[in-house]
Amino acid sequence: MKRIAVLTSGGDAPGMNAAVRAVVRKAISEGMEVCGINRGYAGMVEGDIFPLDAKGVSNILSRGGTFLQSARYPEFAKLEGQLKGIEQLKKHGIEGVVVIGGDGSYHGAMRLTEHGFPAVGLPGTIDNDIVGTDYTIGFDTAVNTATDALDKIRDTSFSHGRTFVVEVMGRNAGDIALWSGIAAGADQIIIPEEPYDIKEVVANVKNGYLSKSKNHHLIVLAEGVMHGEEFAAQMKEAGDNSDLRVTNLGHILRGGAPTPRDRVIASWMGAHAVELLREGKGGLAIGIQNEELVEHPILGSAEDGALFSLTEQGEIVVNNPHKARLDFAALNRDLSN
Amino acid sequence: MKRIAVLTSGGDAPGMNAAVRAVVRKAISEGMEVCGINRGYAGMVEGDIFPLDAKGVSNILSRGGTFLQSARYPEFAKLEGQLKGIEQLKKHGIEGVVVIGGDGSYHGAMRLTEHGFPAVGLPGTIDNDIVGTDYTIGFDTAVNTATDALDKIRDTSFSHGRTFVVEVMGRNAGDIALWSGIAAGADQIIIPEEPYDIKEVVANVKNGYLSKSKNHHLIVLAEGVMHGEEFAAQMKEAGDNSDLRVTNLGHILRGGAPTPRDRVIASWMGAHAVELLREGKGGLAIGIQNEELVEHPILGSAEDGALFSLTEQGEIVVNNPHKARLDFAALNRDLSN
Amino acid sequence: MKRIAVLTSGGDAPGMNAAVRAVVRKAISEGMEVCGINRGYAGMVEGDIFPLDAKGVSNILSRGGTFLQSARYPEFAKLEGQLKGIEQLKKHGIEGVVVIGGDGSYHGAMRLTEHGFPAVGLPGTIDNDIVGTDYTIGFDTAVNTATDALDKIRDTSFSHGRTFVVEVMGRNAGDIALWSGIAAGADQIIIPEEPYDIKEVVANVKNGYLSKSKNHHLIVLAEGVMHGEEFAAQMKEAGDNSDLRVTNLGHILRGGAPTPRDRVIASWMGAHAVELLREGKGGLAIGIQNEELVEHPILGSAEDGALFSLTEQGEIVVNNPHKARLDFAALNRDLSN
Amino acid sequence: MKRIAVLTSGGDAPGMNAAVRAVVRKAISEGMEVCGINRGYAGMVEGDIFPLDAKGVSNILSRGGTFLQSARYPEFAKLEGQLKGIEQLKKHGIEGVVVIGGDGSYHGAMRLTEHGFPAVGLPGTIDNDIVGTDYTIGFDTAVNTATDALDKIRDTSFSHGRTFVVEVMGRNAGDIALWSGIAAGADQIIIPEEPYDIKEVVANVKNGYLSKSKNHHLIVLAEGVMHGEEFAAQMKEAGDNSDLRVTNLGHILRGGAPTPRDRVIASWMGAHAVELLREGKGGLAIGIQNEELVEHPILGSAEDGALFSLTEQGEIVVNNPHKARLDFAALNRDLSN
Repeated sequence: MKRIAVLTSGGDAPGMNAAVRAVVRKAISEGMEVCGINRGYAGMVEGDIFPLDAKGVSNILSRGGTFLQSARYPEFAKLEGQLKGIEQLKKHGIEGVVVIGGDGSYHGAMRLTEHGFPAVGLPGTIDNDIVGTDYTIGFDTAVNTATDALDKIRDTSFSHGRTFVVEVMGRNAGDIALWSGIAAGADQIIIPEEPYDIKEVVANVKNGYLSKSKNHHLIVLAEGVMHGEEFAAQMKEAGDNSDLRVTNLGHILRGGAPTPRDRVIASWMGAHAVELLREGKGGLAIGIQNEELVEHPILGSAEDGALFSLTEQGEIVVNNPHKARLDFAALNRDLSN
Repeated sequence: MKRIAVLTSGGDAPGMNAAVRAVVRKAISEGMEVCGINRGYAGMVEGDIFPLDAKGVSNILSRGGTFLQSARYPEFAKLEGQLKGIEQLKKHGIEGVVVIGGDGSYHGAMRLTEHGFPAVGLPGTIDNDIVGTDYTIGFDTAVNTATDALDKIRDTSFSHGRTFVVEVMGRNAGDIALWSGIAAGADQIIIPEEPYDIKEVVANVKNGYLSKSKNHHLIVLAEGVMHGEEFAAQMKEAGDNSDLRVTNLGHILRGGAPTPRDRVIASWMGAHAVELLREGKGGLAIGIQNEELVEHPILGSAEDGALFSLTEQGEIVVNNPHKARLDFAALNRDLSN
Repeated sequence: MKRIAVLTSGGDAPGMNAAVRAVVRKAISEGMEVCGINRGYAGMVEGDIFPLDAKGVSNILSRGGTFLQSARYPEFAKLEGQLKGIEQLKKHGIEGVVVIGGDGSYHGAMRLTEHGFPAVGLPGTIDNDIVGTDYTIGFDTAVNTATDALDKIRDTSFSHGRTFVVEVMGRNAGDIALWSGIAAGADQIIIPEEPYDIKEVVANVKNGYLSKSKNHHLIVLAEGVMHGEEFAAQMKEAGDNSDLRVTNLGHILRGGAPTPRDRVIASWMGAHAVELLREGKGGLAIGIQNEELVEHPILGSAEDGALFSLTEQGEIVVNNPHKARLDFAALNRDLSN
Repeated sequence: MKRIAVLTSGGDAPGMNAAVRAVVRKAISEGMEVCGINRGYAGMVEGDIFPLDAKGVSNILSRGGTFLQSARYPEFAKLEGQLKGIEQLKKHGIEGVVVIGGDGSYHGAMRLTEHGFPAVGLPGTIDNDIVGTDYTIGFDTAVNTATDALDKIRDTSFSHGRTFVVEVMGRNAGDIALWSGIAAGADQIIIPEEPYDIKEVVANVKNGYLSKSKNHHLIVLAEGVMHGEEFAAQMKEAGDNSDLRVTNLGHILRGGAPTPRDRVIASWMGAHAVELLREGKGGLAIGIQNEELVEHPILGSAEDGALFSLTEQGEIVVNNPHKARLDFAALNRDLSN
């Protein structure tokens, strides 16, 4: 393989730039050429493709977001979109592609591989909810940003004796809420993977104040459960009479300089993607499991370790969905007394 | 004066702890004793008063919020509340008080002084809208936190080619919006002290995208204008068709370790408050103007430099209200092209 | 077990406070009482022991260092010291101990267990060189601090076209150098676990400048190799003629608010230590391997997974010494072109 | 004036990029063209000059160092060097220059102006020791970085009961030491502008430990006094018997993302430089005094406010040298008890 390309797709995540840099640098050290594709699959189809060299990625390691930009592009799920993309790849002499993104991005990579253009996926999202890896690129940074914000909110919460509901990102997974909640000493953490009883939530708040052990109360809420304002309304309805405030950390969790850990795992996985392409392998997604690099077929049979399988009806099923750390949820209950 | 007390009142602000520490340490070095009063004037009235020594404030310099806690206590505006408070001061042998807070806190200090208990005010709020000082304790930290968040939002804004409206605190004053907006390279800054034309705002957004000079757009909005969601709705109504998102930085701006600058000015003003009390002076508010310590009578005639005056009808008027830096607003317009 | 104690020993590390908090909170939730022991084994022998409750550890989660203080105390290796310590434990009704520290601290825990006082060890050091765990408490924070400093040094290095040798902590292990070096995009990383050729080091510097691909050069050096000044002198002797500067990050790597990751793993291991003691288990060291909690006998046979064994001559041997990630060293070589 | 240029000279400082961006953006908004000059006066003489546009400076506001790079170039003090530089300016159609740097850079600006090329100076250095301004670009950031490091060192200092001497930059001025020392609650601050008695320094350390009010001791030392190791040796010789360590913060103080304050003042002064050039004014240095923009003649008579004057013997004298805040030194003594 003489020339490969790299793109970022789906929601941006800190560390994507570090992964791109690793792809570029590793490819060059293997004697390959590299192109960047702007705005994900949309840019591929539009031919928004340009050459990248070592110096061109020399200042991006510590920058948040993705300098290649990203975009959602549902059209790539259809054959027509794929063929347009392939035409562009041919035009630019590109033989393999590294795709940094989430589930949707992986499916695109699978299609490219089926069409004869080996493509490898890297897990990039702050939510940590991608199959086939313990950690996604961007998760550690988002947890840091969330914890930093929670630490700040605790200051003002303590000063005024208030109850705070703080909403953090995580549509399907409570990972950001769990890690940042434990790290910030949250009194309660509410995640989509575990049911909650609003009466119990309110009773916990009340007991904290009554026992005089606490003068304030911090609840971390994953957005996948519901929005903060809605949750606060439920609490009020269930009898909460504390000085209750809501904050939504929102999009600040998506940006920021990646943590060293995100930079390292992004670099590690990015370099490995090039090794796989060099060997002509595609249709694989890279992950880190048990602190080692792994790769899984994106589509295939569960026995072969594939992340997704097709049912007889042609539906895509996830074989080993990302699991919430319910042990961490229990841990926080023990530590918040 | 042998024994003084210190309290924090109104909204909390980073650096209040540094000011309390300075009051305690300076008083001790002057041979005086110091008490802390919890929860502002409410705690004073309830007698929630306790002795403080040098070691007791040895770990608070870098901590956000106020370890003395704060509370709003409108009852102190009435004579009855004041008399209760004074009774407690007498009971604890307290002869003078340092009050760290905002306008309301200053008026309380004025009353105490009139009753024979010299009290000195220090400006503590993130909003920077207190009269008699160029900078309030907490402002620099809030600007840092806001800028840090804006930098992060810019990452994701660039990555996805989006327009962001970011709401920052500042009920009456646009200072946080102006400083953080310039620091983060905001494309537009909307503040309460300056009118805006929503059509022009939308035109600016459109022109940026059209001219290809910008692929994203960042608008910083002071809460005193309106809420972010409302502003975004106005934009949409005025024809904005960009990918528009809203984020409210909310309460994270109130917490966090104070910046060195906030610690230094808090320490400087806190120590000076003790010097004034030692000389038996009260009814004064300390500020920093033109990089030097100043003190102003809280109530009196404008000619004497008093911050507030009473009209013949007994109404309180502000003599030299805090002014917005409209030159900074103009500066940002020049730099955002 | 009704009452346990916790101490920190050896060099301090960020996250030790989070571990202490977890021990205290978990013990309370299990119905046990907890004492803190100041200054490690020295404090144990001197009886510097005091009760801890949930509120007493409510503000320490995010604080660097160890509020229990630490000290090296070689006297505890002798029977006399141990007996004095045990006398104090008896006096305070303490039946089990959690020890947070390094190798030496583990041996002390082993001795206490042999004397009938079950003790469990937790790995606390920034160097990441403790056996039986993939990560030590404090390592992630030290990597963050080092990377942050390296990012700053790169700014000035680039601005002036300079070569920098930056010494980071790590007496036996190059982990901090490797992780922070990859994260900061170091041009070269020199660690004790891998030989280096000074001529090659200098040639790399020269080639970077000659090829015009680099205008500056960043070398991260683990202290276990030698001091920065010495290494720079070797470089000069080997012909380096670049504008060479040396910086030693020194003790700043030991302090600072722990990262969320360090707080989480410290909390997780701290709570588990209490579970082991509750079951009467001692002589064990807790670790995290492959993202799960593990415990190993501190002393015993290698087959049983013990961390250390005694030879027939009575010498202590390490069974599975901490290994350097030489794959990371290779990774960085690929990425620094 | 149709085309101007901007360069950075002398030691780099965070915020220089923000100043360059402001010069470029303001010039464009005034209808002028702008060139960047790489590596200060050296690059001017070598013709390392290139056009800059608004987009070209769109990502540098938050970046440390100077993307134009800097260099010391004593040759520009001689006529020959100046003439070469002017030749290049003519060649590129440049009619005015903004110079960001220190004293030496100002003198270069003076020479250019005398030769008919109006040049304006901006104060850029972390040391805060440039005449004609209360604050230099980079100072606030350096104080932040130093305070952050001191906070970290305090953690480990407390944990082990140690005395630390921490050397911070500041060859002629103790400003960084004073501000960061007060902000970090240093026990002693040693600056070049104030004599110290080593016996008193040691006595202070001893008294702190004896009085049990302190278990550790933090001394901040400006490099202009002497190096940390040397100071520690003096202490030992004078009888210090504490567990004494030395750390030199070194070059980390020169890098890092500029604080919002540095970005704002850099933007403010940068834009003003363009206004002066537009009016054909040169030979001036911009500063901020009493929170307002000011400009001073670089060379002239003291009565006219010139920063430097020539004696009859042709020697340059500084008219109003930067003064140390000895009141801050006194303040810290009061607060460190």
